[in-house]
Amino acid sequence: MTLDLPAIRADFPILSRQVNGRPLVYLDNGASAQKPRVVIDAISRTYEGEYANVHRGLHTLSTLATERYEAVRGTIARFLKARHPAEVIFTSGATEAINLVSYSWAAPRLKAGDEILLSVLEHHANIVPWAFLRERQGVVLKWVEPEPDGSLPPEKMLAAITPRTKLIAVTHMSNVTGTVVDVGAIARGTDVPVLVDGSQAAVHLPLDVPALGCAFYAITGHKLYGPSGSGAIWIDRARQDEMRPFMGGGDMIREVTREAVTYADPPLRFEAGTPGIVNQIGLGVALDYMMGLGMENIAAHERALRDHARARLRELNWLTVQGDAPGKGAIFSMTMEGAHAHDLSTILDKRGIAIRAGTHCAMPLMQFYGVTASARASFALYNTEAEVDALIDGLIFCRELFA
Amino acid sequence: MTLDLPAIRADFPILSRQVNGRPLVYLDNGASAQKPRVVIDAISRTYEGEYANVHRGLHTLSTLATERYEAVRGTIARFLKARHPAEVIFTSGATEAINLVSYSWAAPRLKAGDEILLSVLEHHANIVPWAFLRERQGVVLKWVEPEPDGSLPPEKMLAAITPRTKLIAVTHMSNVTGTVVDVGAIARGTDVPVLVDGSQAAVHLPLDVPALGCAFYAITGHKLYGPSGSGAIWIDRARQDEMRPFMGGGDMIREVTREAVTYADPPLRFEAGTPGIVNQIGLGVALDYMMGLGMENIAAHERALRDHARARLRELNWLTVQGDAPGKGAIFSMTMEGAHAHDLSTILDKRGIAIRAGTHCAMPLMQFYGVTASARASFALYNTEAEVDALIDGLIFCRELFA
Repeated sequence: MTLDLPAIRADFPILSRQVNGRPLVYLDNGASAQKPRVVIDAISRTYEGEYANVHRGLHTLSTLATERYEAVRGTIARFLKARHPAEVIFTSGATEAINLVSYSWAAPRLKAGDEILLSVLEHHANIVPWAFLRERQGVVLKWVEPEPDGSLPPEKMLAAITPRTKLIAVTHMSNVTGTVVDVGAIARGTDVPVLVDGSQAAVHLPLDVPALGCAFYAITGHKLYGPSGSGAIWIDRARQDEMRPFMGGGDMIREVTREAVTYADPPLRFEAGTPGIVNQIGLGVALDYMMGLGMENIAAHERALRDHARARLRELNWLTVQGDAPGKGAIFSMTMEGAHAHDLSTILDKRGIAIRAGTHCAMPLMQFYGVTASARASFALYNTEAEVDALIDGLIFCRELFA
Repeated sequence: MTLDLPAIRADFPILSRQVNGRPLVYLDNGASAQKPRVVIDAISRTYEGEYANVHRGLHTLSTLATERYEAVRGTIARFLKARHPAEVIFTSGATEAINLVSYSWAAPRLKAGDEILLSVLEHHANIVPWAFLRERQGVVLKWVEPEPDGSLPPEKMLAAITPRTKLIAVTHMSNVTGTVVDVGAIARGTDVPVLVDGSQAAVHLPLDVPALGCAFYAITGHKLYGPSGSGAIWIDRARQDEMRPFMGGGDMIREVTREAVTYADPPLRFEAGTPGIVNQIGLGVALDYMMGLGMENIAAHERALRDHARARLRELNWLTVQGDAPGKGAIFSMTMEGAHAHDLSTILDKRGIAIRAGTHCAMPLMQFYGVTASARASFALYNTEAEVDALIDGLIFCRELFA
């Protein structure tokens, strides 16, 4: 079923605004997605009439908020095809999710000389938490390079495993090149636990996380058309049992005395303090919105956008696009000789086109491609082929300016 | 200046709703406060027309969002009377704030046998992060009991300091008894760094954090009439220099290569990943709302509520109120012989009155008072003397039921 783009675009209030006197063309979805009306309204409605703190209250508003909040665990479970809602741990986003695994699972288990295997495609969120373990306890980070086209063959990751490899941390979709990594082939090919950074992939691909065979799968709500400060991580229940608590505070304990603390069962064990109640309620609505459109339909629409963008970008032989892996997502990072990425972004912005310029929190991948910065256009379910064409026109305009 | 209560109450949409056919009497503010229209509207407005990811973008929406978001650092600084916005580090709330100090400052510095001094008044958020250091590295937790009335003389804390005391962690206002602790007298009385849990105090008292002389001051946005997932911690800049990063990810780095990571300067060093952008923007509006009313005026109104509630509760000689320290805040925890706290909450809820029943995430204090649970009524700037009377009537009704 094809998406009804005019109807969808009408669902996102911000898409009808102008920027610098031109209709907004929002192509910065890799950084964060815009929010549909249903999400914004769910936030307002909760604060206007259904808000209280969760879990420990017995009064009507607290019960109502707790039901709404806890129901999102089930929504996320459906979205990821998890077998049980308790496999879902709420976090403020993918960064907290990956740090949770680093502090709770990896830090107490990994010893000096143990290895964590990373791909060079990784976002800093899936690098720095592991670099802490290198700095602090002598863990070794081993890197696997993608092919020049940005693809990452699973066999290449598997071949880099040694008897000291204790964890593989890999993205499901590069936020720079759009490369889709066959993380299932990696996870099913080894007994080493695999952490998947699903920050981008969850937005664009239908998921069946248990079928992937990974141990940890992190998602972030603000890229999933949900609110700031929402997100989660799916964790295999056997791995949950291997984890110590991360943050300490209310809700994650069973009993506190002056002498000792005992902890609640997972998933609450890993959710300290008052959570991002309304943010997570909004995320639930966002995921329902996506599932209502159909993840297969979203993916098909974005494949069409990708194909159109790829074809049109190839016409621009003065432009270098970093990576072009088969099956990639609709994310394009590019450089233009003689023009800095920041200049491209600034000039496109004058035409209402929002793209991102910089290192995209993926400096090792920038270094791999030998660039200091790139301009990135990243597409979402509400983008159109006409917006691809607006981008192309804008790039041609930049070329004329700088040539 | 006295507060215009009818106007203020009209600012909070939820206060006009009914619960179980009765006007809502919301006395669960110690758990979380309701939100004024200006905060709810700021959230909607941002998502509807001004939203993008912050910091790394150059396009109009990103610049706009970054300005709005970073301005909140200044708003929080004004609210706390901080000398510089860089003393303010954004967190998702007080729990993350205190864990930040535990992981970033305390964990790498404290050795087995070193002592952390805590009061028995503390919330689990200011206990469990330190209990981790006991479990994991042999740090000793030393406890100071309040007086039977819940007061905590600063000299009692100071007298418990030994040459091994490396940190004092103490609340500014108990969330159970309302006790206000003279944390300034503690901090100024010793060279040992003092972490203050300001989760309750910041809501009810005018603050001048630098004048307190503490090292760390944590606040949480959702209790400050702000959104879920907002908050901050004030950290003395000399202490910031002593801290290693907590969470790793985007925004907190200077450079990432395969071999090494270098970190951004504080405060960004301690703020990994996409932050709670819209939540913090909402918190800024909430703090402006409070400052607009005047913190002295809010405090005066709440003192009047406290005095009225204290006088009326004293009439109920079959009720035990835990703690009655001079200068306490408008928070009352109570037990009634023959009735469980949960029953009180449930019966009051039928009358539209929201209170909290349980251990209030302060089990050591419950143990001190010899109770397993209590019923807590906690007041906020929008509460009225008529609501105090409704609570008293409700308690009398409970007494008649259970007597």
